[in-house]
Amino acid sequence: MPADEDAGSRGRITLLTDFGTADGYVAAMRGVIASRAPAAMVEDATHDIPAGDVSAAAHAIGAYWELYPPGTVHVAVVDPGVGSDRRAIAVSALGRFGVGPDNGVLTPLLERADAVHEISAEGLMREPRSATFDGRDLFAPAAAYLAAGGLIDRVGAPVAEPILLKTAEPTRGPGGAHGRVVHVDRFGNLISNIPADWAPVGARVQVNGVDVGPVRRTYSDVASGEPIAVIGSRGKLEVSVRDGSAVQHLGAGRNADIRVVTQP
Amino acid sequence: MPADEDAGSRGRITLLTDFGTADGYVAAMRGVIASRAPAAMVEDATHDIPAGDVSAAAHAIGAYWELYPPGTVHVAVVDPGVGSDRRAIAVSALGRFGVGPDNGVLTPLLERADAVHEISAEGLMREPRSATFDGRDLFAPAAAYLAAGGLIDRVGAPVAEPILLKTAEPTRGPGGAHGRVVHVDRFGNLISNIPADWAPVGARVQVNGVDVGPVRRTYSDVASGEPIAVIGSRGKLEVSVRDGSAVQHLGAGRNADIRVVTQP
Amino acid sequence: MPADEDAGSRGRITLLTDFGTADGYVAAMRGVIASRAPAAMVEDATHDIPAGDVSAAAHAIGAYWELYPPGTVHVAVVDPGVGSDRRAIAVSALGRFGVGPDNGVLTPLLERADAVHEISAEGLMREPRSATFDGRDLFAPAAAYLAAGGLIDRVGAPVAEPILLKTAEPTRGPGGAHGRVVHVDRFGNLISNIPADWAPVGARVQVNGVDVGPVRRTYSDVASGEPIAVIGSRGKLEVSVRDGSAVQHLGAGRNADIRVVTQP
Repeated sequence: MPADEDAGSRGRITLLTDFGTADGYVAAMRGVIASRAPAAMVEDATHDIPAGDVSAAAHAIGAYWELYPPGTVHVAVVDPGVGSDRRAIAVSALGRFGVGPDNGVLTPLLERADAVHEISAEGLMREPRSATFDGRDLFAPAAAYLAAGGLIDRVGAPVAEPILLKTAEPTRGPGGAHGRVVHVDRFGNLISNIPADWAPVGARVQVNGVDVGPVRRTYSDVASGEPIAVIGSRGKLEVSVRDGSAVQHLGAGRNADIRVVTQP
Repeated sequence: MPADEDAGSRGRITLLTDFGTADGYVAAMRGVIASRAPAAMVEDATHDIPAGDVSAAAHAIGAYWELYPPGTVHVAVVDPGVGSDRRAIAVSALGRFGVGPDNGVLTPLLERADAVHEISAEGLMREPRSATFDGRDLFAPAAAYLAAGGLIDRVGAPVAEPILLKTAEPTRGPGGAHGRVVHVDRFGNLISNIPADWAPVGARVQVNGVDVGPVRRTYSDVASGEPIAVIGSRGKLEVSVRDGSAVQHLGAGRNADIRVVTQP
Repeated sequence: MPADEDAGSRGRITLLTDFGTADGYVAAMRGVIASRAPAAMVEDATHDIPAGDVSAAAHAIGAYWELYPPGTVHVAVVDPGVGSDRRAIAVSALGRFGVGPDNGVLTPLLERADAVHEISAEGLMREPRSATFDGRDLFAPAAAYLAAGGLIDRVGAPVAEPILLKTAEPTRGPGGAHGRVVHVDRFGNLISNIPADWAPVGARVQVNGVDVGPVRRTYSDVASGEPIAVIGSRGKLEVSVRDGSAVQHLGAGRNADIRVVTQP
């Protein structure tokens, strides 16, 4: 399967897994890539996704996939269905590529996809393919192929209906907005699905019915240890505790109820 | 100590340590390499080996060392004997190199080695060499030297009998095979030393005397939460729990007894 | 803001944060850098600094910043003051650069700085700049600019008095030296601020008043499990336990009292 000529523009690969690094599984993927696409720049996005947490993985990918230049191949292997008949897919979106299982982990790219193909072409995978490690035997080879300039329509047949994660949609009424915590980050910040323009500065915010004050501009608008509602780095309402953890302070986590009250 | 001309084919270094990253020790090694072999591509294999666990490190290296292209230099610094008179060695095997302490951590390469040399040449190490950090002062310089095309026989005298980890060998009789768990991975999988051809699909498997069912083809052959015996990614029998942890489910760990019963 | 011609000598960036990797924040920074300085080699120093621990971050940077070749850009984002009016700065020291908040995290470079500038130039930052993520919107762009050959005096106005961490200075009298534990590493080693020439081999060492024996040359001078005082990899007195943790063995941590008794 010869690569195309425009390899120069596609020489970057990011890796996201739930493997940790200590067992050598990630390095095995890197070794396969180094052998098949020796000039590719391979970057670790993360290997610390909680085991099997497809939702957390998709959220993380959403933080970075579009910031990389066109041609970048984003690999995501959080794959509790390895060894089943779940499909492996390659996605093209805004000039970037995604490679991973068809279980929703690539949702941020699939929402913008112009092409989705099953990874199934002969000669692409490592042989013999193990029953337990598609990261090494299938996804790494596919990523190396695309990074070296391979064409997405040669990795396999088009996929008509890839699986996207169902995301809770926020709602809006005359008195305000209602959403959910969709992610909790390392700092204990509660990240909601409510967009910035539904949460104007000054509107009151409640987490599971508990008032946490108005939407503010920046962390320094409250004292250390106080909760604060603010628009986060992806344009959504977040609830934090300055120099602390909103998770601990409020006893709330993923799926918690968030309300914005614009009219009392 | 001038480098040779074929540097282009040896410009990749992988790093494995038990240092974690938070203290800056790994970055210190990277800085030394960046100064001495600026064109080398340096990849983190892992820095999360449990402190001093030479066996876990050797197992991890076994997962990836041969998948990298010839010329790659694999550095492994799990070195509880730093500051003692244990030797530092460089190994050549199948065109790849290994660099680390002579304590068995490089066993997967040593089993295939065509050359083993002590790292002792004048001018190679950083001066002054600290008593506590050979990763920075000795192993990183040696890796940079080899990655830039240096010759292994110039790093020091040949080593006749490097230390290899003694590995428990599985045994086989008319009724089946008997081995041990040699590694437990992040997912709680129990990885044995029993090769695939001693564990045919359908043979019964026992962990510490407890039946876990027959050898199966793939995880999806059992329901979520059930134990399963399957051939793993390195061609050895593994015992897992689908969407769970065999360690927790079975209360077994490294060195647990594994039996394959082919004739009752 | 065009880059200068000497880009080739400045193409390396190291990243230190307290972000962890699982949320995708680090990969977002990497994506911005990949888009703005595609040829730069980006290396992870660490993302495991304890949240908000500026002192630990500065100590880690001290382990590696000078070992990298001139032109390297060291990014350090441990930034509890994000969103306040704390300044963002770029530092030049010994030909290397530092980029981070003006909160002391860059102290090792600031102690040797020949230039310090606020990062404030129009056109440098990502727009719109979020209130919560300067790592992505300000520090990554500034690092990419410098790595691509940008001039430090174009990132903003000179800063006359950047903030340096106040470090406890050791003292010396006729009977010996007195200092403190300034860092505890992953292995439980207690790293002091007492320089090697104040701690000659044979002098007695006390931690919080408890004798831990004389200064020795190397770990193998004591038996496994025994405490040992030794000169560490940065030329300072350290107290360790061979194959163990001095933190656990001695019940001591950061700021513990360390004495060297040269005359009884």
